Amino acid sequence: MAGTDASLKAEKTIARAPVIILVGPQLGENIGMCARAMLNCAVTELRIVNPRDGWPNPAAVASASGATEVLDKAKLYTSTKEAVADLEFVLATTARERGMVKDIYSTEAAAKEIRLRNAGQDQKCGILFGPERAGLENDDVALANAILNIPLNPGFSSLNLAQAVLLVCFSWLSADNPFQPGDVVTEMGDTAPAQKQEIEMLLTHIEDELVNGNFFRSPEQKPTILRNIRNFFFRAAPTQQDVRTLHGIVSCLTGKRTWK
Amino acid sequence: MAGTDASLKAEKTIARAPVIILVGPQLGENIGMCARAMLNCAVTELRIVNPRDGWPNPAAVASASGATEVLDKAKLYTSTKEAVADLEFVLATTARERGMVKDIYSTEAAAKEIRLRNAGQDQKCGILFGPERAGLENDDVALANAILNIPLNPGFSSLNLAQAVLLVCFSWLSADNPFQPGDVVTEMGDTAPAQKQEIEMLLTHIEDELVNGNFFRSPEQKPTILRNIRNFFFRAAPTQQDVRTLHGIVSCLTGKRTWK
Repeated sequence: MAGTDASLKAEKTIARAPVIILVGPQLGENIGMCARAMLNCAVTELRIVNPRDGWPNPAAVASASGATEVLDKAKLYTSTKEAVADLEFVLATTARERGMVKDIYSTEAAAKEIRLRNAGQDQKCGILFGPERAGLENDDVALANAILNIPLNPGFSSLNLAQAVLLVCFSWLSADNPFQPGDVVTEMGDTAPAQKQEIEMLLTHIEDELVNGNFFRSPEQKPTILRNIRNFFFRAAPTQQDVRTLHGIVSCLTGKRTWK
Repeated sequence: MAGTDASLKAEKTIARAPVIILVGPQLGENIGMCARAMLNCAVTELRIVNPRDGWPNPAAVASASGATEVLDKAKLYTSTKEAVADLEFVLATTARERGMVKDIYSTEAAAKEIRLRNAGQDQKCGILFGPERAGLENDDVALANAILNIPLNPGFSSLNLAQAVLLVCFSWLSADNPFQPGDVVTEMGDTAPAQKQEIEMLLTHIEDELVNGNFFRSPEQKPTILRNIRNFFFRAAPTQQDVRTLHGIVSCLTGKRTWK
Protein backbone atom coordinates (compact mmCIF):
# COMPACT_ATOMS: atom_id res chain seq x y z
CA MET A 1 0.00 0.00 0.00
CA ALA A 2 2.91 2.34 -0.65
CA GLY A 3 2.25 5.55 -2.49
CA THR A 4 -0.88 6.89 -4.09
CA ASP A 5 0.41 7.21 -7.63
CA ALA A 6 -0.27 4.00 -9.46
CA SER A 7 1.19 5.06 -12.77
CA LEU A 8 4.05 2.80 -13.71
CA LYS A 9 7.08 4.78 -14.76
CA ALA A 10 10.06 3.34 -16.55
CA GLU A 11 12.82 5.31 -14.98
CA LYS A 12 15.14 2.57 -13.80
CA THR A 13 17.61 1.01 -16.14
CA ILE A 14 16.67 -2.43 -17.35
CA ALA A 15 19.25 -5.18 -17.09
CA ARG A 16 20.32 -6.69 -20.37
CA ALA A 17 17.45 -8.88 -21.50
CA PRO A 18 18.11 -12.40 -22.77
CA VAL A 19 18.32 -12.97 -26.52
CA ILE A 20 15.36 -15.00 -27.80
CA ILE A 21 16.38 -17.54 -30.46
CA LEU A 22 13.68 -19.21 -32.54
CA VAL A 23 15.04 -22.34 -34.22
CA GLY A 24 13.21 -23.40 -37.40
CA PRO A 25 9.92 -21.59 -36.72
CA GLN A 26 7.21 -22.55 -39.20
CA LEU A 27 4.53 -19.87 -39.27
CA GLY A 28 5.35 -16.19 -39.74
CA GLU A 29 2.27 -15.45 -37.65
CA ASN A 30 3.90 -17.18 -34.69
CA ILE A 31 7.14 -15.23 -35.13
CA GLY A 32 5.15 -12.00 -35.03
CA MET A 33 3.30 -13.08 -31.89
CA CYS A 34 6.64 -13.95 -30.29
CA ALA A 35 7.93 -10.45 -31.10
CA ARG A 36 4.82 -8.95 -29.48
CA ALA A 37 5.21 -11.12 -26.35
CA MET A 38 8.90 -10.15 -26.14
CA LEU A 39 8.24 -6.42 -26.37
CA ASN A 40 5.44 -6.72 -23.78
CA CYS A 41 8.23 -7.78 -21.43
CA ALA A 42 10.87 -5.30 -22.65
CA VAL A 43 12.85 -8.09 -24.37
CA THR A 44 13.92 -6.88 -27.79
CA GLU A 45 16.71 -9.01 -29.28
CA LEU A 46 15.35 -11.71 -31.59
CA ARG A 47 17.38 -14.25 -33.60
CA ILE A 48 15.82 -16.61 -36.10
CA VAL A 49 17.46 -19.81 -37.35
CA ASN A 50 16.17 -21.12 -40.69
CA PRO A 51 12.57 -19.93 -40.66
CA ARG A 52 10.55 -22.31 -42.85
CA ASP A 53 8.85 -19.58 -44.90
CA GLY A 54 11.86 -17.29 -45.38
CA TRP A 55 12.59 -13.88 -43.95
CA PRO A 56 11.34 -11.15 -43.83
CA ASN A 57 7.79 -12.48 -43.63
CA PRO A 58 4.72 -10.18 -43.98
CA ALA A 59 2.61 -12.53 -41.82
CA ALA A 60 4.99 -11.85 -38.95
CA VAL A 61 4.53 -8.10 -39.27
CA ALA A 62 0.74 -8.49 -39.33
CA SER A 63 0.61 -10.51 -36.12
CA ALA A 64 3.20 -8.46 -34.21
CA SER A 65 0.55 -5.84 -33.36
CA GLY A 66 3.09 -3.06 -33.63
CA ALA A 67 6.16 -4.80 -32.22
CA THR A 68 7.94 -4.04 -35.46
CA GLU A 69 11.09 -2.75 -33.78
CA VAL A 70 11.76 -6.33 -32.64
CA LEU A 71 11.17 -7.76 -36.12
CA ASP A 72 13.20 -5.02 -37.85
CA LYS A 73 16.22 -5.73 -35.66
CA ALA A 74 15.86 -9.55 -35.83
CA LYS A 75 18.93 -11.37 -37.10
CA LEU A 76 18.82 -14.38 -39.38
CA TYR A 77 21.10 -17.44 -39.00
CA THR A 78 21.58 -20.70 -40.87
CA SER A 79 22.60 -22.74 -37.83
CA THR A 80 21.91 -22.73 -34.11
CA LYS A 81 25.65 -22.89 -33.49
CA GLU A 82 26.14 -19.52 -35.22
CA ALA A 83 23.14 -18.04 -33.44
CA VAL A 84 24.61 -18.76 -30.00
CA ALA A 85 28.27 -18.09 -30.89
CA ASP A 86 28.63 -14.79 -28.99
CA LEU A 87 26.58 -15.82 -25.95
CA GLU A 88 28.00 -16.89 -22.61
CA PHE A 89 25.02 -18.74 -21.18
CA VAL A 90 22.30 -20.49 -23.18
CA LEU A 91 19.14 -22.28 -22.07
CA ALA A 92 17.17 -24.67 -24.27
CA THR A 93 13.41 -24.60 -23.72
CA THR A 94 11.97 -28.09 -23.81
CA ALA A 95 9.27 -30.09 -22.09
CA ARG A 96 10.63 -33.51 -23.09
CA GLU A 97 13.38 -35.46 -21.35
CA ARG A 98 16.41 -35.89 -23.54
CA GLY A 99 18.43 -38.63 -21.87
CA MET A 100 21.21 -36.06 -21.70
CA VAL A 101 23.10 -34.87 -18.65
CA LYS A 102 21.78 -31.35 -18.15
CA ASP A 103 20.55 -29.15 -15.37
CA ILE A 104 16.87 -28.32 -15.75
CA TYR A 105 15.84 -24.83 -14.68
CA SER A 106 12.29 -23.80 -13.88
CA THR A 107 11.13 -20.57 -15.52
CA GLU A 108 11.68 -18.72 -12.25
CA ALA A 109 15.11 -20.19 -11.60
CA ALA A 110 16.14 -19.38 -15.17
CA ALA A 111 15.05 -15.78 -14.72
CA LYS A 112 17.13 -15.47 -11.55
CA GLU A 113 20.15 -17.14 -13.14
CA ILE A 114 20.06 -14.75 -16.09
CA ARG A 115 19.70 -11.70 -13.81
CA LEU A 116 22.65 -12.94 -11.78
CA ARG A 117 24.88 -13.53 -14.77
CA ASN A 118 23.90 -10.11 -16.10
CA ALA A 119 24.44 -8.18 -12.95
CA GLY A 120 27.56 -9.77 -11.58
CA GLN A 121 29.39 -10.91 -14.65
CA ASP A 122 27.87 -9.01 -17.55
CA GLN A 123 27.26 -12.25 -19.41
CA LYS A 124 25.08 -12.26 -22.49
CA CYS A 125 22.41 -14.93 -22.18
CA GLY A 126 20.12 -16.54 -24.73
CA ILE A 127 17.10 -18.82 -24.72
CA LEU A 128 16.40 -21.34 -27.49
CA PHE A 129 12.89 -22.26 -28.64
CA GLY A 130 12.28 -25.05 -31.16
CA PRO A 131 9.82 -25.35 -34.06
CA GLU A 132 6.10 -25.35 -33.28
CA ARG A 133 5.41 -29.07 -33.46
CA ALA A 134 8.59 -30.98 -32.82
CA GLY A 135 10.50 -28.67 -30.49
CA LEU A 136 14.28 -28.48 -30.37
CA GLU A 137 16.43 -31.28 -31.74
CA ASN A 138 18.94 -32.94 -29.43
CA ASP A 139 21.83 -31.33 -31.31
CA ASP A 140 20.37 -27.91 -30.47
CA VAL A 141 19.84 -28.88 -26.84
CA ALA A 142 23.49 -30.00 -26.65
CA LEU A 143 24.56 -26.43 -27.51
CA ALA A 144 22.88 -25.10 -24.38
CA ASN A 145 24.33 -24.94 -20.87
CA ALA A 146 21.09 -26.17 -19.40
CA ILE A 147 17.44 -26.92 -20.06
CA LEU A 148 14.57 -24.56 -19.32
CA ASN A 149 11.33 -26.30 -18.44
CA ILE A 150 8.14 -24.28 -18.00
CA PRO A 151 6.41 -26.03 -15.11
CA LEU A 152 2.78 -26.54 -16.17
CA ASN A 153 -0.09 -28.96 -15.56
CA PRO A 154 1.54 -32.26 -16.62
CA GLY A 155 -1.81 -33.50 -17.87
CA PHE A 156 -2.11 -30.58 -20.31
CA SER A 157 1.20 -28.89 -20.88
CA SER A 158 1.18 -28.04 -24.59
CA LEU A 159 1.73 -24.32 -25.17
CA ASN A 160 1.97 -22.54 -28.46
CA LEU A 161 5.30 -20.95 -29.32
CA ALA A 162 4.35 -17.35 -28.49
CA GLN A 163 2.85 -18.38 -25.14
CA ALA A 164 6.08 -20.17 -24.21
CA VAL A 165 8.07 -17.08 -25.17
CA LEU A 166 5.63 -14.89 -23.19
CA LEU A 167 5.93 -16.95 -19.99
CA VAL A 168 9.73 -17.08 -20.19
CA CYS A 169 10.07 -13.34 -20.92
CA PHE A 170 7.50 -12.39 -18.26
CA SER A 171 9.38 -14.48 -15.68
CA TRP A 172 12.56 -12.64 -16.62
CA LEU A 173 10.83 -9.25 -16.32
CA SER A 174 9.18 -10.23 -13.04
CA ALA A 175 12.51 -11.21 -11.47
CA ASP A 176 13.30 -7.50 -11.09
CA ASN A 177 10.54 -5.48 -12.66
CA PRO A 178 11.37 -1.76 -12.90
CA PHE A 179 7.79 -1.03 -13.94
CA GLN A 180 6.30 -2.45 -10.73
CA PRO A 181 6.23 0.12 -7.94
CA GLY A 182 5.31 -2.42 -5.26
CA ASP A 183 3.39 -5.64 -4.76
CA VAL A 184 0.24 -3.78 -3.81
CA VAL A 185 -0.37 -0.07 -4.31
CA THR A 186 -3.58 1.87 -3.75
CA GLU A 187 -5.23 3.88 -6.47
CA MET A 188 -6.85 6.89 -4.75
CA GLY A 189 -8.59 8.73 -7.58
CA ASP A 190 -8.96 12.40 -6.61
CA THR A 191 -9.63 11.83 -2.92
CA ALA A 192 -7.50 10.86 0.09
CA PRO A 193 -7.84 8.47 3.03
CA ALA A 194 -9.90 9.89 5.87
CA GLN A 195 -8.07 10.80 9.06
CA LYS A 196 -8.93 8.74 12.10
CA GLN A 197 -10.63 11.75 13.72
CA GLU A 198 -12.89 12.13 10.70
CA ILE A 199 -13.94 8.52 11.08
CA GLU A 200 -14.51 9.07 14.80
CA MET A 201 -16.78 12.04 14.08
CA LEU A 202 -18.78 9.81 11.74
CA LEU A 203 -18.99 7.14 14.44
CA THR A 204 -20.24 9.75 16.93
CA HIS A 205 -22.84 10.86 14.42
CA ILE A 206 -23.98 7.27 13.95
CA GLU A 207 -23.94 6.57 17.69
CA ASP A 208 -26.06 9.66 18.46
CA GLU A 209 -28.65 8.65 15.92
CA LEU A 210 -28.70 5.06 17.16
CA VAL A 211 -29.33 6.35 20.68
CA ASN A 212 -32.12 8.57 19.34
CA GLY A 213 -33.64 5.58 17.58
CA ASN A 214 -33.47 3.35 20.69
CA PHE A 215 -31.17 0.96 18.86
CA PHE A 216 -29.49 -0.27 22.06
CA ARG A 217 -31.86 -2.48 24.00
CA SER A 218 -29.64 -2.54 27.10
CA PRO A 219 -26.76 -0.35 28.29
CA GLU A 220 -24.53 -3.45 28.57
CA GLN A 221 -24.60 -4.31 24.89
CA LYS A 222 -23.81 -0.78 23.72
CA PRO A 223 -19.99 -0.90 24.07
CA THR A 224 -19.72 -4.20 22.23
CA ILE A 225 -21.90 -3.07 19.36
CA LEU A 226 -20.05 0.24 19.07
CA ARG A 227 -16.72 -1.60 19.05
CA ASN A 228 -17.92 -3.80 16.20
CA ILE A 229 -19.12 -0.79 14.22
CA ARG A 230 -15.83 1.03 14.85
CA ASN A 231 -13.89 -2.07 13.80
CA PHE A 232 -15.84 -2.26 10.55
CA PHE A 233 -15.25 1.38 9.62
CA PHE A 234 -11.56 1.36 10.47
CA ARG A 235 -11.02 -1.87 8.57
CA ALA A 236 -12.89 -0.49 5.57
CA ALA A 237 -10.50 2.49 5.43
CA PRO A 238 -12.99 5.04 4.07
CA THR A 239 -11.79 8.04 2.10
CA GLN A 240 -12.69 11.62 2.96
CA GLN A 241 -15.36 11.44 0.26
CA ASP A 242 -16.73 8.18 1.72
CA VAL A 243 -17.02 9.83 5.15
CA ARG A 244 -18.94 12.76 3.69
CA THR A 245 -21.26 10.39 1.85
CA LEU A 246 -21.83 8.29 4.97
CA HIS A 247 -22.72 11.41 7.02
CA GLY A 248 -25.21 12.26 4.31
CA ILE A 249 -26.68 8.76 4.35
CA VAL A 250 -27.14 8.83 8.12
CA SER A 251 -28.76 12.27 7.95
CA CYS A 252 -31.02 11.15 5.13
CA LEU A 253 -32.11 7.97 6.88
CA THR A 254 -33.04 9.93 10.00
CA GLY A 255 -34.97 12.55 8.04
CA LYS A 256 -32.37 15.21 8.89
CA ARG A 257 -30.87 15.71 5.48
CA THR A 258 -29.27 19.16 5.59
CA TRP A 259 -29.01 19.85 1.89
CA LYS A 260 -31.82 20.64 -0.51
CA MET B 1 20.36 -30.18 -8.20
CA ALA B 2 18.13 -32.40 -6.08
CA GLY B 3 17.23 -35.82 -7.41
CA THR B 4 17.95 -37.46 -10.69
CA ASP B 5 14.37 -38.05 -11.79
CA ALA B 6 13.22 -35.07 -13.77
CA SER B 7 9.74 -36.35 -14.45
CA LEU B 8 7.19 -34.00 -12.94
CA LYS B 9 4.61 -35.88 -10.97
CA ALA B 10 1.28 -34.45 -9.88
CA GLU B 11 0.88 -36.15 -6.56
CA LYS B 12 0.27 -33.21 -4.29
CA THR B 13 -3.17 -31.77 -3.88
CA ILE B 14 -3.70 -28.48 -5.68
CA ALA B 15 -5.22 -25.61 -3.76
CA ARG B 16 -8.53 -24.35 -5.04
CA ALA B 17 -7.80 -22.43 -8.21
CA PRO B 18 -9.36 -19.03 -8.81
CA VAL B 19 -12.48 -18.82 -10.97
CA ILE B 20 -11.78 -17.07 -14.29
CA ILE B 21 -14.63 -14.76 -15.34
CA LEU B 22 -14.69 -13.43 -18.90
CA VAL B 23 -17.00 -10.42 -19.15
CA GLY B 24 -18.46 -9.77 -22.60
CA PRO B 25 -15.83 -11.67 -24.63
CA GLN B 26 -16.20 -11.08 -28.35
CA LEU B 27 -14.48 -13.89 -30.26
CA GLY B 28 -15.18 -17.54 -29.53
CA GLU B 29 -11.61 -18.23 -30.62
CA ASN B 30 -10.35 -16.15 -27.71
CA ILE B 31 -12.59 -17.95 -25.23
CA GLY B 32 -11.12 -21.26 -26.41
CA MET B 33 -7.57 -19.98 -26.10
CA CYS B 34 -8.37 -18.79 -22.57
CA ALA B 35 -9.62 -22.28 -21.70
CA ARG B 36 -6.39 -23.76 -23.02
CA ALA B 37 -4.26 -21.30 -21.05
CA MET B 38 -6.27 -22.05 -17.91
CA LEU B 39 -5.89 -25.82 -18.20
CA ASN B 40 -2.15 -25.40 -18.87
CA CYS B 41 -2.04 -23.97 -15.35
CA ALA B 42 -4.51 -26.44 -13.75
CA VAL B 43 -7.19 -23.73 -13.51
CA THR B 44 -10.51 -25.21 -14.61
CA GLU B 45 -13.49 -23.11 -13.52
CA LEU B 46 -14.61 -20.69 -16.25
CA ARG B 47 -17.56 -18.29 -16.10
CA ILE B 48 -18.70 -16.26 -19.09
CA VAL B 49 -20.85 -13.12 -18.88
CA ASN B 50 -22.78 -12.21 -22.04
CA PRO B 51 -20.48 -13.57 -24.76
CA ARG B 52 -21.10 -11.52 -27.90
CA ASP B 53 -21.56 -14.51 -30.23
CA GLY B 54 -23.66 -16.69 -27.90
CA TRP B 55 -22.82 -19.92 -26.14
CA PRO B 56 -21.82 -22.66 -26.78
CA ASN B 57 -19.56 -21.51 -29.59
CA PRO B 58 -17.86 -23.97 -31.99
CA ALA B 59 -14.99 -21.53 -32.58
CA ALA B 60 -14.11 -21.81 -28.89
CA VAL B 61 -13.91 -25.60 -29.09
CA ALA B 62 -11.68 -25.40 -32.16
CA SER B 63 -9.15 -23.09 -30.52
CA ALA B 64 -9.12 -24.79 -27.11
CA SER B 65 -6.69 -27.45 -28.43
CA GLY B 66 -8.33 -30.12 -26.30
CA ALA B 67 -9.17 -28.10 -23.20
CA THR B 68 -12.80 -29.10 -23.68
CA GLU B 69 -13.34 -30.04 -20.04
CA VAL B 70 -12.99 -26.35 -19.19
CA LEU B 71 -15.47 -25.30 -21.90
CA ASP B 72 -17.95 -28.07 -21.07
CA LYS B 73 -18.09 -27.01 -17.42
CA ALA B 74 -18.17 -23.25 -18.20
CA LYS B 75 -21.14 -21.41 -16.71
CA LEU B 76 -23.03 -18.65 -18.49
CA TYR B 77 -24.27 -15.47 -16.76
CA THR B 78 -26.20 -12.39 -17.83
CA SER B 79 -24.50 -10.00 -15.39
CA THR B 80 -21.13 -9.69 -13.67
CA LYS B 81 -22.94 -9.29 -10.35
CA GLU B 82 -24.45 -12.77 -10.69
CA ALA B 83 -21.14 -14.22 -11.84
CA VAL B 84 -19.34 -13.09 -8.66
CA ALA B 85 -22.25 -13.67 -6.26
CA ASP B 86 -20.83 -16.75 -4.48
CA LEU B 87 -17.21 -15.51 -4.38
CA GLU B 88 -15.49 -14.05 -1.34
CA PHE B 89 -12.61 -12.22 -3.04
CA VAL B 90 -12.61 -10.82 -6.56
CA LEU B 91 -9.90 -9.09 -8.57
CA ALA B 92 -10.56 -7.02 -11.69
CA THR B 93 -7.82 -7.23 -14.32
CA THR B 94 -7.19 -3.84 -15.85
CA ALA B 95 -4.27 -1.81 -17.14
CA ARG B 96 -6.06 1.55 -17.00
CA GLU B 97 -6.46 3.76 -13.96
CA ARG B 98 -10.07 4.12 -12.96
CA GLY B 99 -10.09 7.10 -10.61
CA MET B 100 -11.53 4.72 -8.06
CA VAL B 101 -10.20 3.96 -4.60
CA LYS B 102 -8.84 0.43 -4.98
CA ASP B 103 -5.79 -1.55 -4.06
CA ILE B 104 -3.80 -2.58 -7.12
CA TYR B 105 -2.16 -6.01 -6.95
CA SER B 106 0.69 -7.11 -9.17
CA THR B 107 0.25 -10.54 -10.76
CA GLU B 108 2.58 -12.04 -8.18
CA ALA B 109 0.94 -10.33 -5.21
CA ALA B 110 -2.48 -11.43 -6.48
CA ALA B 111 -1.28 -15.02 -6.71
CA LYS B 112 -0.02 -14.93 -3.12
CA GLU B 113 -3.21 -13.27 -1.85
CA ILE B 114 -5.38 -15.94 -3.48
CA ARG B 115 -3.20 -18.75 -2.06
CA LEU B 116 -3.46 -17.20 1.37
CA ARG B 117 -7.22 -16.78 1.28
CA ASN B 118 -7.52 -20.36 0.04
CA ALA B 119 -5.26 -21.95 2.57
CA GLY B 120 -6.16 -20.07 5.71
CA GLN B 121 -9.76 -19.14 5.16
CA ASP B 122 -11.02 -21.41 2.40
CA GLN B 123 -12.28 -18.39 0.46
CA LYS B 124 -13.39 -18.78 -3.13
CA CYS B 125 -11.63 -16.24 -5.31
CA GLY B 126 -12.33 -15.00 -8.82
CA ILE B 127 -10.59 -12.89 -11.43
CA LEU B 128 -12.47 -10.68 -13.90
CA PHE B 129 -11.28 -10.05 -17.48
CA GLY B 130 -13.03 -7.56 -19.75
CA PRO B 131 -13.85 -7.67 -23.48
CA GLU B 132 -10.95 -7.79 -25.94
CA ARG B 133 -10.86 -4.14 -26.97
CA ALA B 134 -12.39 -2.01 -24.26
CA GLY B 135 -11.60 -3.98 -21.11
CA LEU B 136 -13.80 -3.98 -18.02
CA GLU B 137 -16.33 -1.22 -17.43
CA ASN B 138 -16.11 0.77 -14.20
CA ASP B 139 -19.29 -0.87 -12.90
CA ASP B 140 -17.59 -4.26 -13.22
CA VAL B 141 -14.42 -2.97 -11.52
CA ALA B 142 -16.54 -1.66 -8.64
CA LEU B 143 -17.72 -5.23 -7.97
CA ALA B 144 -14.15 -6.33 -7.27
CA ASN B 145 -12.25 -6.08 -3.99
CA ALA B 146 -9.17 -4.87 -5.79
CA ILE B 147 -7.50 -4.37 -9.14
CA LEU B 148 -5.05 -6.78 -10.73
CA ASN B 149 -2.46 -5.12 -12.93
CA ILE B 150 -0.07 -7.24 -15.00
CA PRO B 151 3.19 -5.31 -14.81
CA LEU B 152 4.52 -5.08 -18.37
CA ASN B 153 6.63 -2.76 -20.51
CA PRO B 154 4.63 0.49 -20.18
CA GLY B 155 5.63 1.44 -23.71
CA PHE B 156 4.04 -1.70 -25.13
CA SER B 157 1.64 -3.29 -22.69
CA SER B 158 -1.23 -4.49 -24.87
CA LEU B 159 -1.83 -8.21 -24.41
CA ASN B 160 -4.51 -10.32 -26.04
CA LEU B 161 -7.14 -11.80 -23.75
CA ALA B 162 -5.73 -15.34 -23.65
CA GLN B 163 -2.22 -14.06 -22.92
CA ALA B 164 -3.53 -12.03 -19.98
CA VAL B 165 -5.34 -15.11 -18.66
CA LEU B 166 -2.18 -17.20 -19.18
CA LEU B 167 0.05 -14.82 -17.22
CA VAL B 168 -2.41 -14.53 -14.35
CA CYS B 169 -3.02 -18.30 -14.15
CA PHE B 170 0.70 -19.11 -14.48
CA SER B 171 1.50 -16.69 -11.65
CA TRP B 172 -1.10 -18.45 -9.52
CA LEU B 173 0.35 -21.87 -10.38
CA SER B 174 3.91 -20.66 -9.79
CA ALA B 175 3.07 -19.37 -6.30
CA ASP B 176 3.07 -22.97 -5.07
CA ASN B 177 3.59 -25.27 -7.99
CA PRO B 178 3.08 -28.95 -7.14
CA PHE B 179 4.49 -29.95 -10.53
CA GLN B 180 7.86 -28.32 -9.91
CA PRO B 181 10.24 -30.61 -8.03
CA GLY B 182 12.80 -27.87 -7.39
CA ASP B 183 14.20 -24.72 -8.92
CA VAL B 184 16.97 -26.63 -10.64
CA VAL B 185 17.13 -30.40 -11.08
CA THR B 186 19.62 -32.41 -13.09
CA GLU B 187 18.57 -34.75 -15.84
CA MET B 188 21.07 -37.65 -15.81
CA GLY B 189 19.95 -39.86 -18.69
CA ASP B 190 21.13 -43.44 -18.02
CA THR B 191 24.45 -42.53 -16.43
CA ALA B 192 25.50 -41.18 -13.03
CA PRO B 193 27.91 -38.54 -11.74
CA ALA B 194 31.50 -39.78 -11.51
CA GLN B 195 32.96 -40.27 -8.05
CA LYS B 196 35.78 -37.97 -7.12
CA GLN B 197 38.25 -40.87 -7.16
CA GLU B 198 37.25 -41.70 -10.74
CA ILE B 199 38.02 -38.12 -11.71
CA GLU B 200 41.34 -38.34 -9.83
CA MET B 201 42.30 -41.46 -11.80
CA LEU B 202 41.56 -39.59 -15.00
CA LEU B 203 43.71 -36.68 -13.81
CA THR B 204 46.54 -39.09 -13.01
CA HIS B 205 46.19 -40.59 -16.48
CA ILE B 206 46.38 -37.12 -18.03
CA GLU B 207 49.28 -36.06 -15.80
CA ASP B 208 51.31 -39.17 -16.70
CA GLU B 209 50.85 -38.54 -20.37
CA LEU B 210 51.70 -34.85 -20.02
CA VAL B 211 54.92 -35.82 -18.26
CA ASN B 212 55.66 -38.30 -21.06
CA GLY B 213 55.07 -35.57 -23.62
CA ASN B 214 57.34 -33.06 -21.83
CA PHE B 215 54.38 -30.74 -21.34
CA PHE B 216 55.84 -29.16 -18.20
CA ARG B 217 58.72 -26.88 -19.08
CA SER B 218 59.79 -26.43 -15.47
CA PRO B 219 59.02 -28.33 -12.27
CA GLU B 220 57.79 -25.11 -10.68
CA GLN B 221 54.88 -24.60 -13.04
CA LYS B 222 53.63 -28.17 -12.77
CA PRO B 223 51.56 -27.83 -9.56
CA THR B 224 49.80 -24.69 -10.81
CA ILE B 225 48.93 -26.22 -14.14
CA LEU B 226 47.70 -29.42 -12.52
CA ARG B 227 45.57 -27.43 -10.12
CA ASN B 228 43.97 -25.57 -13.00
CA ILE B 229 43.28 -28.82 -14.83
CA ARG B 230 41.84 -30.38 -11.67
CA ASN B 231 39.70 -27.33 -11.11
CA PHE B 232 38.30 -27.55 -14.61
CA PHE B 233 37.37 -31.21 -14.34
CA PHE B 234 35.80 -30.92 -10.93
CA ARG B 235 33.79 -27.89 -11.97
CA ALA B 236 32.60 -29.65 -15.11
CA ALA B 237 31.17 -32.50 -13.00
CA PRO B 238 31.73 -35.29 -15.53
CA THR B 239 29.60 -38.41 -15.47
CA GLN B 240 31.00 -41.94 -15.31
CA GLN B 241 30.47 -42.16 -19.06
CA ASP B 242 32.31 -38.86 -19.59
CA VAL B 243 35.28 -40.17 -17.58
CA ARG B 244 35.44 -43.35 -19.69
CA THR B 245 35.27 -41.28 -22.87
CA LEU B 246 38.00 -38.92 -21.64
CA HIS B 247 40.31 -41.84 -20.80
CA GLY B 248 39.71 -43.09 -24.32
CA ILE B 249 40.49 -39.68 -25.81
CA VAL B 250 43.76 -39.41 -23.89
CA SER B 251 44.78 -42.92 -24.93
CA CYS B 252 43.87 -42.19 -28.53
CA LEU B 253 45.78 -38.92 -28.63
CA THR B 254 48.91 -40.62 -27.28
CA GLY B 255 48.63 -43.49 -29.73
CA LYS B 256 47.84 -45.93 -26.92
CA ARG B 257 44.26 -46.70 -27.76
CA THR B 258 43.51 -50.04 -26.09
CA TRP B 259 40.47 -51.06 -28.12
CA LYS B 260 40.41 -52.16 -31.71
